[in-house]
Formats: sequence, C-alpha cells, structure tokens
Amino acid sequence: MTANLTAAVIGLGSMGWGAAVSLLRAGIVTQGVDLRLDVLQKFERQGGRGYGSAAQVADDADVVFTFVVNADQAEDVLFGDQGAVATAAQGTVFVTCVTMPPDRAIGIADRLHEAGMLAIDAPVSGGSIKAEAGEMTIMASGPDAAFDKAAPAIEAISTKVFRLGDVAGPGSQVKMINQLLAGVHIAAAAEALSLSAKIGLDLKTVHEVIQDCAGNSWMFGNRGAHIVAGDYTPHSAVDIFVKDLGIVTGTADALAFPTPLSDTALALFHEAAADGLGGEDDAAVAKVLARKGGVRLPGDTG
Amino acid sequence: MTANLTAAVIGLGSMGWGAAVSLLRAGIVTQGVDLRLDVLQKFERQGGRGYGSAAQVADDADVVFTFVVNADQAEDVLFGDQGAVATAAQGTVFVTCVTMPPDRAIGIADRLHEAGMLAIDAPVSGGSIKAEAGEMTIMASGPDAAFDKAAPAIEAISTKVFRLGDVAGPGSQVKMINQLLAGVHIAAAAEALSLSAKIGLDLKTVHEVIQDCAGNSWMFGNRGAHIVAGDYTPHSAVDIFVKDLGIVTGTADALAFPTPLSDTALALFHEAAADGLGGEDDAAVAKVLARKGGVRLPGDTG
Repeated sequence: MTANLTAAVIGLGSMGWGAAVSLLRAGIVTQGVDLRLDVLQKFERQGGRGYGSAAQVADDADVVFTFVVNADQAEDVLFGDQGAVATAAQGTVFVTCVTMPPDRAIGIADRLHEAGMLAIDAPVSGGSIKAEAGEMTIMASGPDAAFDKAAPAIEAISTKVFRLGDVAGPGSQVKMINQLLAGVHIAAAAEALSLSAKIGLDLKTVHEVIQDCAGNSWMFGNRGAHIVAGDYTPHSAVDIFVKDLGIVTGTADALAFPTPLSDTALALFHEAAADGLGGEDDAAVAKVLARKGGVRLPGDTG
Repeated sequence: MTANLTAAVIGLGSMGWGAAVSLLRAGIVTQGVDLRLDVLQKFERQGGRGYGSAAQVADDADVVFTFVVNADQAEDVLFGDQGAVATAAQGTVFVTCVTMPPDRAIGIADRLHEAGMLAIDAPVSGGSIKAEAGEMTIMASGPDAAFDKAAPAIEAISTKVFRLGDVAGPGSQVKMINQLLAGVHIAAAAEALSLSAKIGLDLKTVHEVIQDCAGNSWMFGNRGAHIVAGDYTPHSAVDIFVKDLGIVTGTADALAFPTPLSDTALALFHEAAADGLGGEDDAAVAKVLARKGGVRLPGDTG
C-alpha cells in the first residue's frame, strides 16, 4: 500500500518539515508546499517535490497534511483562491495538524466533507526534534475510512496516535487541554527559576533537584534548561502561546468557565510579546519576571 | 555505626510515620513522639517506643528528626516548655524536615547551634507512600559534622539526598521552589480536567493522552488520577498548599518579586478552604472551578 500512496504537506515550518522528511524516509512520494523558496530547495535536495501553492499539489495526493500556524491560514490554504480542495480528487484525506479552536476544526471538517473529502482533526505534540525523527504524538479524531486510507502516512510521521473519536472536535479539544497545561507549566517554570535567581540559588542545581521531585513537569525539564543556559533560540516562540492560550481562554470564556491559571499565564505571554520577546523561545517569559523583580538571568542582556 | 545510633522522630503524621518505620526497619532504635495515643500504640506494635512529649526523648537520641506541620510547631517542639533541646545532649543532630519559610529555618538552625546542637535544614519530597518505603528525597543543607553523624539514619529514610550547602537556608529555599511548582501544577491539573469535563471530554482519556504529551507534570499524573477517580481522600490536603504557597508569596513579596502564577494558585486553594474543602486532598481545588463553571466532576456530590 505504501508504494502507491502519495502525500502532500502544506507548510514546511518546524513541524511540517519534520513530517515531510519523515514521509520521504518511509518511501512515500511527498510534495511540500511553502512560500519560502530556500525551504523548497532544501526539501527538493531531500528528495521531495516543492511547490509555492497548495493548488498545485492536491490533484496528485492521496493524503494532504496541513501544518500552518492557525485556523485562518488553514482555511486559506484549503479553501482560498490557491487552496488545495478545489483541485483535489474526491475522497482525498485531509489531515489538519494545526492547533486551533475546536469549533474552527469542526467547521473545517464539515466543509471538507461537503466537498467530498475525508477529514481528520489531528493536532500534534512533540516538538521539532521528535517531528524530524518521525516520532510525533497525534491527537486525532475522524472517520475510520480516513484513518484506513491515510494509515501508512500517519505511521510514517508518528510513534503514537490517539484515536479520540470518529468526528472532528475531540482531537483539537484534547490538544487545547494539552496547551493549557503546557503554557501554564512554562510560565510556572519561568516563575520558579527567576525567583530562584532572586534568592541566590544556583539555577543548575535547582533544575537538577526539582526534576527528581514532585514539582517536576515536562516543560520544567525542557524549557527550564533553556533558562538555565540563557539560550532563547526559538524552538517554539512566545507568540505561539499567545495564540494557544488565547484559544483556551476564548473557548472557556464562551462557556463562562473559569480558567484563572491560563488567564494569568496568557497575560505573562502577552507582556513578553509587548516587550519585544514574541519571536524568542517561549521560556523568555522568565525575562519579564526577572526584569520586574530586579534580577539578571543567564543570557539576559536586555 | 548503625548499631550504636539512636533516633527520635517528633511528629508521626504521614511523612514522620514513614521515616520512623523506615528507621526501625534499618535496625535503628527509634523513639516516636506524637500527641495521639492510638498512633503511639501502633508505633510500639511496630517495635518503636512511643512518647507524648519531645522532652522525653532527646536525652536518649543521637539524631532527632522533626516532622511537624509548620515553623511555629517546630519551634514549640524544639524550644518550648516540653521541647527537645533542653534535655538533649550536646552535639545531638537535629534534622528539621518541616516545610517552612527559609528565614525561619535559618533562625531555628541558629538557635540550635547556639544551644550546642548540630542542625540540618532538611525538607523532604515524595509523599506518604515513598516515605513509608524509606524512599524520600531530601533537600538538605547543614555542616558536614551533622551529616557525618546522622548518615545512617538519613540513609534509612531516603533514596536521594541533595546536599545544597553547609548552612541552613538552601534546603528550605529549594523546597519552597518545589512547592511553588507543585502547587501551580495541581491548580493547572484541576483547571485542565474541569474544563475537559465542561466540554464533554472523557477525563480518563484526557489523563492518559496528556501523560504522553508535553503538557504532562508529576502532579498531573498523580493528582489528576484523584480527579478522574473522584477520590479526594487526603494524601496531602488543601490546607497544606494554603500554607506552602503562602510561604512562596510571602517570601517573594518581601523581595518585591512578582509571582503571578503562585498568587493565582494560592487564591484558588484559599477559595477551596473557604468552601470547606481544606481537609480534602489538594486536588479538590478542581471542585471549586467545576462548581463555578457549572459542571459536575466524578465524585463531587457537594
């Protein structure tokens, strides 16, 4: 089956790039779509075929992954003037791997089904390193027929696929809950390590000890290391959590549900973005607290 | 050396009990102090000797562990009318395993040294199950002479001892940072799972998926399971985090350092206590959010 499957990946950012090269590695003919010529050239050197527009790829793909930044971009690359759906064959599987409000994910899947396509709501987790290794975790929901057809491609990019239901919605909902926790944990790691610096503790020691204690989180281990090293090279940027925690609070507000921790963390990410840190690694929220509290973190020359 | 060492444990609550039975298991003669007769009788059935007052044990102990609830209680059992220090031999090692403000830990160690004692600032982490297994993690600071003398007893109760310095202070400071993270993570787990319930997700599924994703924390795994099961049997109560996050915010406020996440989590624990949930498991903060947001969690009959 693999030999006959052709895939496309729209959006070759860090996660999309990882998916695209993982598909190539699995022997699947893969087309990549991006606006950046240098990225397309790099992708062709890896053995893929690069295009500047989604309309150019869909007629020749059985499975189309979308890895753009938000719901508006996803609607544009799928349904816009240069969108993929108009040229796609009936029954093409669209796997939408974008973190977006669950109601938007449901709306996109509905439009895809109306157009005769199959749709999987499939946000991912794992970061760029796991993506490039083909080891993403996918929180997926959609009809069995879509999973059956896309299976070889999905297997190529992931080590774990959670099947969360047969319609769009649950995939994006669980991803939203994951981002709630991830965003709050990054902010908590920032608060813990900047306060540690203020009281004169050695950050490397604190980072090591806590990872053996009940205060640990995946984000404390991962982003805490960025703060300790003073390295804010963006693996995932502050602006991403402005968006993702905004999805959480927007969804909760519409339900009149209280999310005090998410609200507080979001305010901190907004403050970092307003301070010009939006393009830095999300761990840079630590700089906001450190500057306000009058202590210098490693690598903070601002 | 073990054979000649005699220990005392003041306060046989969940952590102190675990330490005391671990000492007995290591063949160390151990005296236990508690106000509750039934606990003392249970301890004697395990092979220990039970007393109602700290003054009765110290003259016969080389190492005295203190496992009471807060700084005031620690000062009382050490320096009060029935306190241990007055009757202790010079050079007795006092290992203070109480989570308290770092400045109070420093003050207690100073008074112990002035009285001719050796002092270790030694907050612990791990919970009651690990405590009973002799597998606590200890965040410890104090002079080498104290560690040398207390070594067999400390080894009996812990699998990991972080030596954080040769004076009191760093032990309690690192523990405070751990509690900052732990408290915020419990509140975040509560927010994530109560919002999941509101949007109709299956909590067991969410709990399973997130543990494989970047949103995971030690507390999400541990306390999240309590919320999913609707079991609020207090392994560690809401009131403990009212105290511990109060230590964080009090210490930070005195330094004019911002702790927005801790402030928000503390407000939630205060609200839970005001709602009559102070004696329930700390995961019960989820009930506060669920009730405000109009959704019923498993096991919440309130």
